[in-house]
Amino acid sequence: MAAPRTISLDAMGGDHGPAIVVPGAALALERHPNVQFLLFGNEARIAPCLADYPALAERSRIIHTDIVVEMQDKPSQAVRRGRGSSMWLSIEAVQKGEADFAVSAGNTGALMAMAKLVLKTMPGIERPAIAGQWPTIARPSIVLDLGANIGATARQLADFAMMGAAMARAIFHIERPRVGLLNIGVEEIKGIEEVRQAHAWLKENDLPFTYHGFVEGDQIGQGVVDVVVVEGYAGNIALKTAEGTAKQMATYVREALTSSFAARIGALLARGGLLALKERMDPRRLNGGPFLGLNGIAIKSHGGTDAFGFSKAIEVGYNMAESDILARLAADLEALHGKLGKAQQVQE
Amino acid sequence: MAAPRTISLDAMGGDHGPAIVVPGAALALERHPNVQFLLFGNEARIAPCLADYPALAERSRIIHTDIVVEMQDKPSQAVRRGRGSSMWLSIEAVQKGEADFAVSAGNTGALMAMAKLVLKTMPGIERPAIAGQWPTIARPSIVLDLGANIGATARQLADFAMMGAAMARAIFHIERPRVGLLNIGVEEIKGIEEVRQAHAWLKENDLPFTYHGFVEGDQIGQGVVDVVVVEGYAGNIALKTAEGTAKQMATYVREALTSSFAARIGALLARGGLLALKERMDPRRLNGGPFLGLNGIAIKSHGGTDAFGFSKAIEVGYNMAESDILARLAADLEALHGKLGKAQQVQE
Repeated sequence: MAAPRTISLDAMGGDHGPAIVVPGAALALERHPNVQFLLFGNEARIAPCLADYPALAERSRIIHTDIVVEMQDKPSQAVRRGRGSSMWLSIEAVQKGEADFAVSAGNTGALMAMAKLVLKTMPGIERPAIAGQWPTIARPSIVLDLGANIGATARQLADFAMMGAAMARAIFHIERPRVGLLNIGVEEIKGIEEVRQAHAWLKENDLPFTYHGFVEGDQIGQGVVDVVVVEGYAGNIALKTAEGTAKQMATYVREALTSSFAARIGALLARGGLLALKERMDPRRLNGGPFLGLNGIAIKSHGGTDAFGFSKAIEVGYNMAESDILARLAADLEALHGKLGKAQQVQE
Repeated sequence: MAAPRTISLDAMGGDHGPAIVVPGAALALERHPNVQFLLFGNEARIAPCLADYPALAERSRIIHTDIVVEMQDKPSQAVRRGRGSSMWLSIEAVQKGEADFAVSAGNTGALMAMAKLVLKTMPGIERPAIAGQWPTIARPSIVLDLGANIGATARQLADFAMMGAAMARAIFHIERPRVGLLNIGVEEIKGIEEVRQAHAWLKENDLPFTYHGFVEGDQIGQGVVDVVVVEGYAGNIALKTAEGTAKQMATYVREALTSSFAARIGALLARGGLLALKERMDPRRLNGGPFLGLNGIAIKSHGGTDAFGFSKAIEVGYNMAESDILARLAADLEALHGKLGKAQQVQE
């Protein structure tokens, strides 16, 4: 039987606050009946939502705070003024050992800054990364960094590879994930110096994953690897570009299937397949991106998601906690840094 | 009446060589009956293809060479061993003033290296860029740099903005194109230093285009601007990621519309709309990416395209030559560099 996890939720985060966080928690509870919840935020707003879910209410505790981080707050503002906010407290519960992981649908920059400040980076880790699940024609892949930082040294890229592999192990249950480095294919130029150096290290060293080598942008969606590693600027641009392209294609398909009376009838006949298509393209299924490299599990949910999507973000944290990701990752990172340290000494 | 342009073609480039280059030229000739062609490559392979197109044969001259740049050649190899190749000679014809522009479907890296060596960069330009046409839900946009170089200084980004605007003017006939800088939206971090500096310059100066400000990856496909400026590493990753996502969506749609007998009938009824969809997603329509910033027009065609696609790459070069892009761009760049020079002096 699974351990009785405690889950810390920023009930005020995102576009809808408790209206989606509470029913999202209720869905998660159906899947994992012995978890319990700490709900941080405005009690007057949370309690009425909770009243609709008696089973959840029994396993939840509301911790009231008036302070809320707004979606438009800058990270530095949020960190200065947001101590004691629902976001801050939800992360602090993880740091204090009162919860196994935290989930927030709030402001990404603020959440990242707070998570870093409260949970601190793991030993030997210079920078955390935001990871996300990327839909592919095969099973989903993990892509990181999606924008926690701009630029990355070779060593940071190697760390990201290790963190991404740990996440794939935790949420997809793949013992030896295939990891690729995102690069560009203009022959000789072959990517930036840092990417080439990371490539050399990952190729040479015995690691707890299968290093696949370089992948290009068009291979992400083909599911060529389980984990795609990239620095945060290009990673964020890739993510947004893929989202934009998917939306654009959806517009085209919709227009094609409503372009005439016959097309409308056709779409009606094909509705089974089209519903399956809609489900495959549903971004809620893959909601939930953890900050990796911290001494605790903090999950960012999409701000505009609904209860189903929020429950999926909880599921990511749950699987990470169940897999005991942090202990294993800490050991793996220590081993990696030992090897890279030696490699650097040999080079000098 | 349009000037009688002379077009220089690398007849051996790409996956199919003369088999697509020659019929591609024939299609271009139908559109522009008074152009003439210089076809560089193996006469024994070109002549039989040309025999099928008497009208084209009359307006073409084959310049024989045995030397061919292979798709897998490295740029440095190509430049060393490829002098006198069909690719080299086709560009040299532009440099010598014998042709108005060159088109090649060959190896991108080699073509770029040769074009830079033979045509040289324009006064004040440090780096050329590869530009491409990006399909959007509105009219296509131009995106650059797609991978000519990795990284870009603020000044190089400002140059790219000017070059992209010139191309939009030439091929879309928009007198004041809207230009955006690709960036990421994680609040405070807001992109790299170079991008912020370029943003400040483009905002402050009076330029021959409308500077829109930052755009994010998901806005490219929405056609928010006519020109998207980005350094080549992230630009190439964005392009490849969009291509991959489009392919992935196409797979989903195909599977949805063949998932059952009813779906197949539905697809048949909707075939008008679906054909229009296929046409919208047809990458051949937007084939042809120029190297910008050189003293001459050289167009890269996709290596795997067909005759129709190749004719579209010729069309890009034709429109650029017709618009007298180089003279206007040289003047615009001189004015820009004057302003930026002053701005830098004021800052110091």
